[in-house]
Amino acid sequence: MIEKLQVELGDRTYPIFIGSDILHQSQNFVPYIKSKQVLIVSNVTVAPLYLDNIKSVLTDFQCHEVILPDGEAYKTLEILNLVFDSLLQNRLNRQVTVVALGGGVIGDMAGFAAACYQRGVPFIQVPTTLLSQVDSSVGGKTGVNHALGKNMIGAFYQPQCVVIDTNTLNTLDDRQLSAGIAEVIKYGLINDLEFFVWLENNMQSLLNRNPESLRYAIKASCQNKANVVAEDEKEAGVRALLNLGHTFGHAIETNEGYGTWLHGEAVSIGLLMAAILSYKQGWITEDDKNRVQQCLASANLPYKIPEKMNADDFIKLMSVDKKVKDGVIRLVLMKSIGESFVTSEYDHSLLIETLNGV
Amino acid sequence: MIEKLQVELGDRTYPIFIGSDILHQSQNFVPYIKSKQVLIVSNVTVAPLYLDNIKSVLTDFQCHEVILPDGEAYKTLEILNLVFDSLLQNRLNRQVTVVALGGGVIGDMAGFAAACYQRGVPFIQVPTTLLSQVDSSVGGKTGVNHALGKNMIGAFYQPQCVVIDTNTLNTLDDRQLSAGIAEVIKYGLINDLEFFVWLENNMQSLLNRNPESLRYAIKASCQNKANVVAEDEKEAGVRALLNLGHTFGHAIETNEGYGTWLHGEAVSIGLLMAAILSYKQGWITEDDKNRVQQCLASANLPYKIPEKMNADDFIKLMSVDKKVKDGVIRLVLMKSIGESFVTSEYDHSLLIETLNGV
Repeated sequence: MIEKLQVELGDRTYPIFIGSDILHQSQNFVPYIKSKQVLIVSNVTVAPLYLDNIKSVLTDFQCHEVILPDGEAYKTLEILNLVFDSLLQNRLNRQVTVVALGGGVIGDMAGFAAACYQRGVPFIQVPTTLLSQVDSSVGGKTGVNHALGKNMIGAFYQPQCVVIDTNTLNTLDDRQLSAGIAEVIKYGLINDLEFFVWLENNMQSLLNRNPESLRYAIKASCQNKANVVAEDEKEAGVRALLNLGHTFGHAIETNEGYGTWLHGEAVSIGLLMAAILSYKQGWITEDDKNRVQQCLASANLPYKIPEKMNADDFIKLMSVDKKVKDGVIRLVLMKSIGESFVTSEYDHSLLIETLNGV
Repeated sequence: MIEKLQVELGDRTYPIFIGSDILHQSQNFVPYIKSKQVLIVSNVTVAPLYLDNIKSVLTDFQCHEVILPDGEAYKTLEILNLVFDSLLQNRLNRQVTVVALGGGVIGDMAGFAAACYQRGVPFIQVPTTLLSQVDSSVGGKTGVNHALGKNMIGAFYQPQCVVIDTNTLNTLDDRQLSAGIAEVIKYGLINDLEFFVWLENNMQSLLNRNPESLRYAIKASCQNKANVVAEDEKEAGVRALLNLGHTFGHAIETNEGYGTWLHGEAVSIGLLMAAILSYKQGWITEDDKNRVQQCLASANLPYKIPEKMNADDFIKLMSVDKKVKDGVIRLVLMKSIGESFVTSEYDHSLLIETLNGV
């Protein structure tokens, strides 16, 4: 069974295919490739597992590949340049289709390379981690990190299609799977109470990689994200909600060095911090705050602030976040589970308390 | 006197102001800046001449600056990163306005940095060379070079406004002025016979930097380019005409190493090559071909192929040009002076003859 969602963006509308064992189905790829030229971008971990699958459905094309090192630490302009080297060394032209095969780092980098190469060539996302399947592969955010801030250099650039094969999650380690679930929980917290309740009741099934449960959770997540992106592609308004937990999480990632925490783990801590501040403000109940914590814990996710970080560290790092406007840090906080909002109208002393973990 | 043109691009429409001594007029800048934060990007040659001018009209803003080395050789990802460093070190946010103060290299790099920083911040073009005033500052092409090809990494990204002060041309050396005139001549050749005739009759006045003549030539050039860009922002069709002379010119620049030839000088040679091939095809008369050569010569521009380049060198370099589609090199050639067209229907042996300079 294959699910198809549509991300509605006018002339940049594109489909997301979700199912198990669908990497072998050429109809998910071939109609979305513009010329004979294809460059597959993958990494040293994923390429040995799935590169041949993809190539076997692209036998009618001239397939080139570039294999990058694995990890957030390599999401840099310098490593990005390896993709440009490959595009140029193979003399690939403006009609080449770039295929991103891997997790969020590969998707973000391959997408950004496609956005910039000759000022824009088509690309296809084949996300192979839960995190990238429910988050980064949907919505067109691409880019690389800078030493002074995460995702600071990039483009909004939409793929031709996204192909999500839940079978690829069978080779994902438990820690990565849980990290992906952090983003799944986020969608429940933002505006889908029903989905959050489903997650409370089905967490073990997700951790066991039940294909039906995975497909349901991925579809619900992608649908939630697609709705928000369709309304606000370039993050002028409602799309900022998707950053629930992320302003805190990015600060943790930057402070600890990329790669120490998985992105989803940092987001998990950030989600609870958002819940704690919302509780301190009197916006959500203690019970709701505890439900958030329990849900994260049931997914084996961390939720405690790293001991060596204090409020000063956070404030410094959060000040370079993209959500900052005229010096004020805007945060995504909660009115209830399933109803989040963007605000700069919070009590600064309660923020400091939250950041100090007290 | 100040001329105002509009580049019509829907919600990305923006004005071009052209006049002498207009860098001092705050109304050309202030309405186009979104927040208090401004980063001026300039180079070591231009900054000492005009940076203070700009800062004097931006006293109400927090003005930061980053000064890059001067020259096409520095139009790289590595140097671009200095702009990102400055943006992040100064903690500039998504509302910062980037001001490009300099020639085409500065405009392309500052524009691309603005396109990528936090996935897009506003920018203003203040071109200070004739080449950038009539070409690169209009139309939203931004980017950097790669060792294997010119302008291979970039974005289509439109400024908030363009401020062209013809007085800045008084500090431009003669060689740079002539290089700019190559692009001016190009507009006449593409689709404006009347303007080409004006250039034949007024070249000395332009070389003497007569302000009226400069304003007329810049306005006519910008208007020609704006019309084409409005019709085809992303170079899906008619915009390719603007590359008249450029496919040859880029090959010369790449072969000789960026910086050996000024861009406009390479384009000048490319324009005559396009005229020669068009003449060999029987599409233009010998008289027209000679008029092209005489016009370039009257502007003190080179028009002979570098001696060490042969057809093989050209073909290799032209094959990575962005105009290549499925291996066929598409060229902009002429039916007459003032009527150019894009074609791959030329006689390959005549192309080889042209490339070999025989």
